[in-house]
Amino acid sequence: MTAHHPDTALSRTETMSLLTLVVACAGVLANTVQGDGEPLIASLALSGIAFGATFAFIRWLGPTFIRSGLKGVDMSKHHRRELPECMGAICAVVYLLVVIVFVPFPFYKDIVAATSGGGNRDVVLQVDHVSQGRFLHRFPHGKLASYLSAIISLQSSAILGIGDDLFDIRWRHKFFIPAFASIPLLVVYFVDFGVTSIVIPIPLQPYLGELFNLGALYYVYMAAIAIFSPNSINILAGINGIEVTQSIIIALLLVLNDTLYLLTPYPHPATDSHLFSLYFLLPFLGVSFALLHYNWYPARVFVGDTYCYFAGMVFATVAILGHFSKTLILLLLPQAFNFVYSTPQLFGLVPCPRHRLPRFNARSGLMEPSVTEWTPDRQPRAPIAWGLKLLDKLRLLRVTLDSEGKFVETSNFTIINLWLVWRGPLREDRLAMEITAMQAAVGLLGLFVRHKLALLIFKEDNLGL
Amino acid sequence: MTAHHPDTALSRTETMSLLTLVVACAGVLANTVQGDGEPLIASLALSGIAFGATFAFIRWLGPTFIRSGLKGVDMSKHHRRELPECMGAICAVVYLLVVIVFVPFPFYKDIVAATSGGGNRDVVLQVDHVSQGRFLHRFPHGKLASYLSAIISLQSSAILGIGDDLFDIRWRHKFFIPAFASIPLLVVYFVDFGVTSIVIPIPLQPYLGELFNLGALYYVYMAAIAIFSPNSINILAGINGIEVTQSIIIALLLVLNDTLYLLTPYPHPATDSHLFSLYFLLPFLGVSFALLHYNWYPARVFVGDTYCYFAGMVFATVAILGHFSKTLILLLLPQAFNFVYSTPQLFGLVPCPRHRLPRFNARSGLMEPSVTEWTPDRQPRAPIAWGLKLLDKLRLLRVTLDSEGKFVETSNFTIINLWLVWRGPLREDRLAMEITAMQAAVGLLGLFVRHKLALLIFKEDNLGL
Repeated sequence: MTAHHPDTALSRTETMSLLTLVVACAGVLANTVQGDGEPLIASLALSGIAFGATFAFIRWLGPTFIRSGLKGVDMSKHHRRELPECMGAICAVVYLLVVIVFVPFPFYKDIVAATSGGGNRDVVLQVDHVSQGRFLHRFPHGKLASYLSAIISLQSSAILGIGDDLFDIRWRHKFFIPAFASIPLLVVYFVDFGVTSIVIPIPLQPYLGELFNLGALYYVYMAAIAIFSPNSINILAGINGIEVTQSIIIALLLVLNDTLYLLTPYPHPATDSHLFSLYFLLPFLGVSFALLHYNWYPARVFVGDTYCYFAGMVFATVAILGHFSKTLILLLLPQAFNFVYSTPQLFGLVPCPRHRLPRFNARSGLMEPSVTEWTPDRQPRAPIAWGLKLLDKLRLLRVTLDSEGKFVETSNFTIINLWLVWRGPLREDRLAMEITAMQAAVGLLGLFVRHKLALLIFKEDNLGL
Repeated sequence: MTAHHPDTALSRTETMSLLTLVVACAGVLANTVQGDGEPLIASLALSGIAFGATFAFIRWLGPTFIRSGLKGVDMSKHHRRELPECMGAICAVVYLLVVIVFVPFPFYKDIVAATSGGGNRDVVLQVDHVSQGRFLHRFPHGKLASYLSAIISLQSSAILGIGDDLFDIRWRHKFFIPAFASIPLLVVYFVDFGVTSIVIPIPLQPYLGELFNLGALYYVYMAAIAIFSPNSINILAGINGIEVTQSIIIALLLVLNDTLYLLTPYPHPATDSHLFSLYFLLPFLGVSFALLHYNWYPARVFVGDTYCYFAGMVFATVAILGHFSKTLILLLLPQAFNFVYSTPQLFGLVPCPRHRLPRFNARSGLMEPSVTEWTPDRQPRAPIAWGLKLLDKLRLLRVTLDSEGKFVETSNFTIINLWLVWRGPLREDRLAMEITAMQAAVGLLGLFVRHKLALLIFKEDNLGL
């Protein structure tokens, strides 16, 4: 809207780079349409366009968001400027447009007719058949329906996320927002697949059989994944860039996992599921890298709950429809740890201040663990006190006692504060980088365990290597 | 959120009535699940629930919207209170949840297995077949894909409408917003049907044949419908209730038209299209009546552009996927007239003030036509002046000239102002009622013409009566 405002204009270099990128990607895209419509190449090209569009729109629309009241103040800086909030909404809208435009590509081979003398096209049909809809019986409608239901779930989570950013919904209400967003996914799963059996690990097979039908519980399980994934990303937050980098790491690890299935020596039966996953993850990486450019330390924009919900729902969607939800859980282990670690404060065993982000020390410019303070009158009850001291001994908490042994303060129960307890005061970007690196290491280890050690408890790794 | 605030609490009677309605509808719904899953009954029940939910949420969330800056002032009242704006967003979210939950119902017969001794079920399948996904080949996936693409288009228009309400997008930008929202519809139409031929009227058949393939132009035509329908509702606005009543009238007329196809003596080939249309229109009526309760004179809430876009997109969606877009155009004739009538101001031939809503006369409490003023220095050019005087003579405009024959003022070019030129000052609710009645009359006439006179220009009316 205000492209010529000095603050919001793209520099000459930026404009040229983005234009080059978008034109190149558009060229590649046009080429796949001319050729055999290779959907993976098309998805990559569209992801590049998504990056460019997000990069430009975040710059252009920042002041518009601030004017509409979508703004926040960065507490961990010397100069507390107002920054645009809820920029994840731009990512979500660009992403959704891109995946909607992408819909025809995976079905190109089913649509295309042998009009030119290509010779080696897989499907040879008269144009009439195509345009008159007579080839419907051989069209992979089930695949189309999953694709569409995924888009509906992602759109729902975008709408609900925007609602949360606008109206500041209470924590205990918004916890269940992703469950609503997962309804389309579950409904289409019910209508279209209805497979509710899981493979039983070998040691349990004598008791339960090879397959165990979870029935309705399978839907509860899927809804739980859809609730867990967005919320776990939403609570690992509070320093510049961390919401985006953790999402990018998870997306990259899922892409790596998908790639393993595409590089098997023979076509793997799950190839389609993992292509599906790539089609949704690549544009997500496109919009996320553009957002990271602005959200990395020192942040010029905030991502909003919209981004966290949206990212979490992208992961839940590909995992549910691709049937690799256990792999996703492995990759969310740091987030799961953060959630479990937070429970003493979330469930009120230890007082929970409104914000638990680490404390910015204005003199050193470094981040330190934030704390909950205890007054001499208000001390933890005996079992809690014992637990806190134990955690302190295990180096899982920093407890400060006074000379009489009374509690003065305890560090807050988040993985970010815990990291600061371990690694001392850190600058905000260093802190974000270390946590991201830790997450990448844990995730890679998780994937390794999943593929190398799976044979110990299942008859075969489904990679089949 | 603030259910116990005195302003936002439902009265005891309201609570009891809504609870009764919702419980009764839930009972009906449960009954259809127990029985043969009659989707039309389920849709009616869900529409009742949608009414109740919208009614309650608009009341509860009003102050939350105002706090978040979504508010406006009613210019046509003595006491200019701040009212919550963008309440169409609540309608859209409730509507979307309801149609998503409804997804399994039309496919009930395809899913259900003969587990109980019903005997007269149409489809008899083993549970295993169903839950293992082996019956996929007989599942109406195409129907499911249209249903899902419709939901995606509606969600897109909700997101874009909310964006417009938040950021006040410029008129020339937002005109094309619905085109973006129609992309999923067009993409799925392309992937799934690809029928781009239209039936040619008999007089033209010697030249063009019985069917004429529009090809890519058909998509342009569908996009044009998707742009026209929401925008035409959005510009027939400005007095309490008019956006909602016009949408309700169109929805009711479409429901009437659908019902005609369901009551034919033998099953009509288009039955499915018209059932599809009903499934989308009934919940729309549910949320719209609840909104009307608050938006009718004197309005306690505003509907926002979100509602107009959403309503228009509901109509465009059912018309495109149900293949009755020409019928929709007939029902949008008053809106089309309003648009054509507005063009002199929209295209700048006559100056266009920022607001063209009718003028509230504070002394009489009645609405009068609002005007564009002409100064002696700034007079219309000769051809325009001639045109304005002609319109005045045709009673299609009110022109005031001074003693020298110079233009003093001309009424603004909207159907609402024209109605006031014809029918003199009216109270706001009377004005809304008359325009709604006019629209209902025009629409009924349109349907009559469409079904009775169609035989003159087509070989057969597709009602086949």
